[in-house]
Amino acid sequence: MGELELLARIRERLPADGRRIHLGSGDDAAVTVPGGATATSVDALVDGVHFRRDLATPAQIGHKALATALSDLAAMGAEPGEAYVVIGIPADLGEDDCIELLDGMVALAERTGTALAGGDLTRAGELFLAVTVVGHAPEPDALVHRSGARPGDALVLTGEVGGAAAGLELLDNPPAGFAFEGATDGASAEPAMKALVGRQLEPMPRLGAGRALAGTGAGGMIDVSDGLGSDGGQIAERSGVGLRIEAESVPLAPGSKELLEGLGRDPWQLLNGGEDYELLAAIPPERLAEAQRRVREAEKTIALTEIGAVVAGSGVEIRLPGGRLLEPGGFDQLA
Amino acid sequence: MGELELLARIRERLPADGRRIHLGSGDDAAVTVPGGATATSVDALVDGVHFRRDLATPAQIGHKALATALSDLAAMGAEPGEAYVVIGIPADLGEDDCIELLDGMVALAERTGTALAGGDLTRAGELFLAVTVVGHAPEPDALVHRSGARPGDALVLTGEVGGAAAGLELLDNPPAGFAFEGATDGASAEPAMKALVGRQLEPMPRLGAGRALAGTGAGGMIDVSDGLGSDGGQIAERSGVGLRIEAESVPLAPGSKELLEGLGRDPWQLLNGGEDYELLAAIPPERLAEAQRRVREAEKTIALTEIGAVVAGSGVEIRLPGGRLLEPGGFDQLA
Repeated sequence: MGELELLARIRERLPADGRRIHLGSGDDAAVTVPGGATATSVDALVDGVHFRRDLATPAQIGHKALATALSDLAAMGAEPGEAYVVIGIPADLGEDDCIELLDGMVALAERTGTALAGGDLTRAGELFLAVTVVGHAPEPDALVHRSGARPGDALVLTGEVGGAAAGLELLDNPPAGFAFEGATDGASAEPAMKALVGRQLEPMPRLGAGRALAGTGAGGMIDVSDGLGSDGGQIAERSGVGLRIEAESVPLAPGSKELLEGLGRDPWQLLNGGEDYELLAAIPPERLAEAQRRVREAEKTIALTEIGAVVAGSGVEIRLPGGRLLEPGGFDQLA
Repeated sequence: MGELELLARIRERLPADGRRIHLGSGDDAAVTVPGGATATSVDALVDGVHFRRDLATPAQIGHKALATALSDLAAMGAEPGEAYVVIGIPADLGEDDCIELLDGMVALAERTGTALAGGDLTRAGELFLAVTVVGHAPEPDALVHRSGARPGDALVLTGEVGGAAAGLELLDNPPAGFAFEGATDGASAEPAMKALVGRQLEPMPRLGAGRALAGTGAGGMIDVSDGLGSDGGQIAERSGVGLRIEAESVPLAPGSKELLEGLGRDPWQLLNGGEDYELLAAIPPERLAEAQRRVREAEKTIALTEIGAVVAGSGVEIRLPGGRLLEPGGFDQLA
């Protein structure tokens, strides 16, 4: 594969210089004029660790690499700005696959208003991606830190969890003929299963919800990429508080509970399934209704659910029906 | 290796929040308030492609990864600001080696005034690093683009080239007992050889020279990471001009010419050796003396040498003594 030809094909796919970008791909560096505060995050994905080439298409891999990076901007309440992409290309990844991977990234970039402003390609022994994203806000205080949860706050969650973990189960052990009893409301199981697989392979960063929560006074926010227990623990530790989560309040992705039950596994473990890229946040209770309204406006199909409370103390308790506590861990995550 | 313990050891090594950084490592993203224009560049280094673990220490690998990224900021004339680091860690790289690698990076960061503001660690099949660097300038026009060379400009080069390529030769085929005839001025060969190896393993980004050149009106600038012919070609193409380089004017790293002659190879090929991370720039001739003074002030031991001229036309001609032109390529580069 000629690197220069590949670069030329890539440049064709990149947008011209945008709002903040004065100089895009092709010089020593991209030049921007941020204006205000920037939030910068970097995420790496490696074949066999964060994705598997036998389970995901190149476009899905590209999508997920950008999505997981953007999800950190969502958790800051930042407006997405620029992305810088490194791709390590193994010998068995052809030029068309590289372009398809990039197209998956470009599609999500366009959908989220992110400019692919630069990058680096290199030969590598295995496929890896490293994506740096830069988000913007008028001032630093407009961004939400993990440390801002206060006792008395309501604990809220966007969307549903468990879908990505259930999707990985389906990918790893596809049911015979994709026929799977137990979809919700008597509907055919197939759309529900496809949606679960989609949650695993093409997660959507909750950028609109993140900005809505930031604008409503959310005081601690993180994406649920490692599961409610683990990521909730980050908020608890950084804020010096405890979190109490009522398991029955947590919305599960349709079909995920039935799938786990069908496999003879404890469906509550889906709460720690991870990779859902929903947002977990703390918000003063008097702002809850407004936050729910603004999240619904921003994300259309995504609701904001109160799943527990911030308390004085430390750590995360996930309370199951009957008063038992959910044990940490329990799921083998791809990531 | 416990990722959390490794992260804790890494955090100990990172500076507290600095000038522009409002929130450093440990949250979803690093928060900065840039003020003015930013230049952002990303560079990836992969084991066996850009470095070899049998030739370089972990500290040298860390140094080089940050140095090559910062070199792109030097070529913009930007002031270094923040760095974001991804490390893909293979099973056979121990925790102490990871820390040593990071220490090599931290040392260069401190020396250059760069804040390590965030990053991501991941398991990987092979060691790779991806470094995103953000540089700053008061306004976009204070940054130097590759496209700004004009016919009539003098072509200037910081420091000396050929050292990195010669150093790689030494590493690949170390002379018996490290005894090597031909060091300059009758001095012992050993310091010269060590310096050549140092040029390969621990290149220094010319950040001070880059800012001095930007401040003196340099109109096209690039680092010579791929060799004079190839990188000069970038300036020529982006500026719509031709470059004429007088080979005899190009300073070669001490001992590099003698080493190549001793191996029976054409020492002029050192001009295309690459990986020297010196700066090649175009500057109006009336600003040359001032630029030379300011580069010397900024970099102490590094001179700025006029090596040719920008002309109307296209492409790069490297003229050898007698009028012959240097053929492109000729060196196997590690990168």
